[in-house]
Amino acid sequence: MERQPMPAYDSDNIFAKLLRGEIPSARVYEDDDTLAFMDIMPRADGHLLVIPKTPCRNVLDASPEQLAAVMQTVQKMGHAVLKAFDADGVTVQQFNEAAGGQEVFHLHFHVLPRKEGDKLRPPGKMGDMEQIQEHAAKIRDAVAG
Amino acid sequence: MERQPMPAYDSDNIFAKLLRGEIPSARVYEDDDTLAFMDIMPRADGHLLVIPKTPCRNVLDASPEQLAAVMQTVQKMGHAVLKAFDADGVTVQQFNEAAGGQEVFHLHFHVLPRKEGDKLRPPGKMGDMEQIQEHAAKIRDAVAG
Repeated sequence: MERQPMPAYDSDNIFAKLLRGEIPSARVYEDDDTLAFMDIMPRADGHLLVIPKTPCRNVLDASPEQLAAVMQTVQKMGHAVLKAFDADGVTVQQFNEAAGGQEVFHLHFHVLPRKEGDKLRPPGKMGDMEQIQEHAAKIRDAVAG
Repeated sequence: MERQPMPAYDSDNIFAKLLRGEIPSARVYEDDDTLAFMDIMPRADGHLLVIPKTPCRNVLDASPEQLAAVMQTVQKMGHAVLKAFDADGVTVQQFNEAAGGQEVFHLHFHVLPRKEGDKLRPPGKMGDMEQIQEHAAKIRDAVAG
């Protein structure tokens, strides 16, 4: 049996809405091609997401330009979270299709600041929005400084 | 207190040795800039790693060219493992510094084929080398076909 083709990009996914400003987000960085904003279910303090501004579903259908631009911002955000949280390392996760762990079908990379000995919190639990906003401010300061 | 700078690249890390052919690996794909080979502690059947052929420690010190080239191979390997294992999704993981989960200090991306309902196996357990070689052959066939 032939494998099913990957579904088409759905422009009503929540990150597409977020990019259009139809839903709020705690933005920490933006350039012509990419946007970084806080994950609302943070598995670590400072957990953020990096996405391309143009549509693609995940790594499997992304263009070379989208992947290159997103990775530049992942690198920049990695340095920013190390500084903002005095972290010791960074874990990057990226999920493709539901079986791969993907829940929103617009390409995104998770950037997770890590400290020695700290474990990631379990997924799927809403964070405290006030604290997330404070963490966003720290990251914006780190990017600026 | 200023954050410590990241340690320098160590050319005796095991992936540098693997690139020089000083230790064996089950290679599945190679181009001018990147190499893909099987993880010997597979957390899923077909778990492979993608690395640049040139030295860098992780995402934090990688050049734009290294990141772009590696992501192109991650994408290619994602499609290859979907085909080779009739998988439903792909999980990508990438670890930076020990606190971030990194154990070998040459940039690498984990590419994990996923099936609906299957969980990843716990990390740190050596795989069966004969089975890993069989999985490598399936991936090479998928890349070729």
